[in-house]
Amino acid sequence: MIVSKRIEAMQESPIRKLVPLSVAAKKKGKKVFHLNIGQPDIKTPDEFFQAIKDFNPGVLAYVFSEGIPELIESFIQYYEGYGMHFERDDILITNGGSEAILFSLIATCDTGDEVLIPEPFYTNYNGFSSTAGVQVVPITTTAENGFDLPEFEVIEALVTDRTKAILLSNPGNPTGKVYTKNEMDRIRDLALKYNLYIIADEVYREFVYDGLEFISFGQFKEIEDRVIITDSISKRYSACGARIGCVATKNKKITKEIMKLCQSRLCVATLEQVGAAKLVEVSKDYMKVAFKEYDKRRKTVFNALQDMEGVLCKIPKGAFYITAKLPVENAETFARWLLTDFDVDGETVMVAPAEGFYATKGMGRDEIRISYVLKQDDLIKAMNILKEGLKVYNQ
Amino acid sequence: MIVSKRIEAMQESPIRKLVPLSVAAKKKGKKVFHLNIGQPDIKTPDEFFQAIKDFNPGVLAYVFSEGIPELIESFIQYYEGYGMHFERDDILITNGGSEAILFSLIATCDTGDEVLIPEPFYTNYNGFSSTAGVQVVPITTTAENGFDLPEFEVIEALVTDRTKAILLSNPGNPTGKVYTKNEMDRIRDLALKYNLYIIADEVYREFVYDGLEFISFGQFKEIEDRVIITDSISKRYSACGARIGCVATKNKKITKEIMKLCQSRLCVATLEQVGAAKLVEVSKDYMKVAFKEYDKRRKTVFNALQDMEGVLCKIPKGAFYITAKLPVENAETFARWLLTDFDVDGETVMVAPAEGFYATKGMGRDEIRISYVLKQDDLIKAMNILKEGLKVYNQ
Repeated sequence: MIVSKRIEAMQESPIRKLVPLSVAAKKKGKKVFHLNIGQPDIKTPDEFFQAIKDFNPGVLAYVFSEGIPELIESFIQYYEGYGMHFERDDILITNGGSEAILFSLIATCDTGDEVLIPEPFYTNYNGFSSTAGVQVVPITTTAENGFDLPEFEVIEALVTDRTKAILLSNPGNPTGKVYTKNEMDRIRDLALKYNLYIIADEVYREFVYDGLEFISFGQFKEIEDRVIITDSISKRYSACGARIGCVATKNKKITKEIMKLCQSRLCVATLEQVGAAKLVEVSKDYMKVAFKEYDKRRKTVFNALQDMEGVLCKIPKGAFYITAKLPVENAETFARWLLTDFDVDGETVMVAPAEGFYATKGMGRDEIRISYVLKQDDLIKAMNILKEGLKVYNQ
Repeated sequence: MIVSKRIEAMQESPIRKLVPLSVAAKKKGKKVFHLNIGQPDIKTPDEFFQAIKDFNPGVLAYVFSEGIPELIESFIQYYEGYGMHFERDDILITNGGSEAILFSLIATCDTGDEVLIPEPFYTNYNGFSSTAGVQVVPITTTAENGFDLPEFEVIEALVTDRTKAILLSNPGNPTGKVYTKNEMDRIRDLALKYNLYIIADEVYREFVYDGLEFISFGQFKEIEDRVIITDSISKRYSACGARIGCVATKNKKITKEIMKLCQSRLCVATLEQVGAAKLVEVSKDYMKVAFKEYDKRRKTVFNALQDMEGVLCKIPKGAFYITAKLPVENAETFARWLLTDFDVDGETVMVAPAEGFYATKGMGRDEIRISYVLKQDDLIKAMNILKEGLKVYNQ
């Protein structure tokens, strides 16, 4: 039996494809520090679990396809804090940020249409694009330039009559890049000039360091009919396993159309919606503590990388990732070797090879993404193992 | 801003599109009996909620993309009860049966490929097909013939070189049809002759009446490499709001490829997986009680329909739906009228117009689907209102 060409062509997750090697390493008794996955280690707020414990529906019935009203209200309240004013029917609850992006692509692009995405990008954008039958056209950015966007004319040259949208994560995964007002204006101008949608993946909104202020595309009045915000509670509330996200847009046509997709999958898991609706009551201290912790780790990782010969990266301003160039020819081979052939006193590290985050063939081959989601002590150990590994590998 | 053609072309849910009229009727103080939606009123088993109350993870982290091991194990155990033997990597947990069908279509069909579906069919098959860019080719069946499948040659004539799969629900929604061994052999022969997949949606497996034995396509050894079972706990455990389903297949290539789609959306909501894993411990009495209740309602609804002049239907053998022909020209107009202009002592009924369950234009225009998910007393009342409504409408 043959399978579809599109599914065969689909890339395996570069973050998850080394998992079997890590499993094997652990079986041999090695300890593996996971720098490869963006799974926060911060506790999920008690409010989430308590709300679910207090919920006794008798029949766990279908709920509204657009999400339960309490959760939609809580998102509205949350966005008010960022100066964005949404109405109830501007927001549709989704199965994580993942479904929000998939639905946005389907609603804005027909099969074969193109979406511009700054590379390196969150690798699952490839998966969503394959599912939606949309072509990814990368806007190349580099570690050397701190992943800054190229000039307007460079991006403009990529636009064709099939380009329908620009998709970008801000702050960026896997780069930690936070777009400047100037860069955002460039995207806005492009969207206006070529009548494009902006799909703004802002799930790391809370994680912006060095005193920078986060700017959302949702704050640009002049493009509010073409901005679709895709969001998730996963990162800010350390609730990745809840799979609660949303689409938020002022474009009523888009919400009306995406509602059809929401209806076709009936609804999002009820209990997690009930829990997530209470997160708006979580004390501001929760985020402050988490933020301080990540900021400390960011510096730890960056300083450690600075201290490794031949490693190149700029300090990231957001999210909890760093993409760095290593003095190796093939970072995936190196990452595999760390798991199969290397350890320091029985301990090793797992990193994500960055090649899979690029759409342009061959780019990122000598780069890795590090997620700094480990406790400070472990992080210091892990970075030391990486340093030693590089030394041994290059001998 | 324009949206994609495919999303504009997508049909609104015929089950949900009359919702505003029902909301308006309720606002006016009318009581509305819902015969339109397949939401069971049976209590969700306590085991489900208890498992979640007992689960205290601290961090609600991503879980495995293929589902948590306990839940996969519980599905394996469940299928053993139907004589189907699956291994751990034969089963992938999905966001309800909905995602299971969507993923199966994407994995078996490329954009523009065709899938054969007996009509009338579960209306969301249209949504999944639109999302996947797949053409639905209906195999027409009729109320007059009790929705029996046509002869082999009739179905065969629909096959083209773009046909990749047959998708069917058994027992059927919205028909209540249970396929005979003979009909299933016909589908098997077709799949073998034209090298097609069979996507078997068997979420109503437990609901087979009149002493019939349920047969699964998963029990046909000779086609086990081309059968993909899509499943859900929603109906059998009255847990529609949990959104827990699965793909189960012996075709290792299919599970390997669908795994990529699973990875791209990271995982299914954790708490509902934890709850669902315990459902295998629910006493057999739970299903027995539910089954008896549905069987009683089925007879109530069928007998009531028999008693209405000009109504045509055969007794359904499975699920909890009946699709019936009414003595009206347009069943949607009638269904709207029931909500806006009719009541018996301040009470009325909501039914699902069946036209949206057909892909062939014009078919089903005088038909409705009734879900018998109301308590016996309410059901009797509701059927009486329908009868009176028909009389008044046709005067």
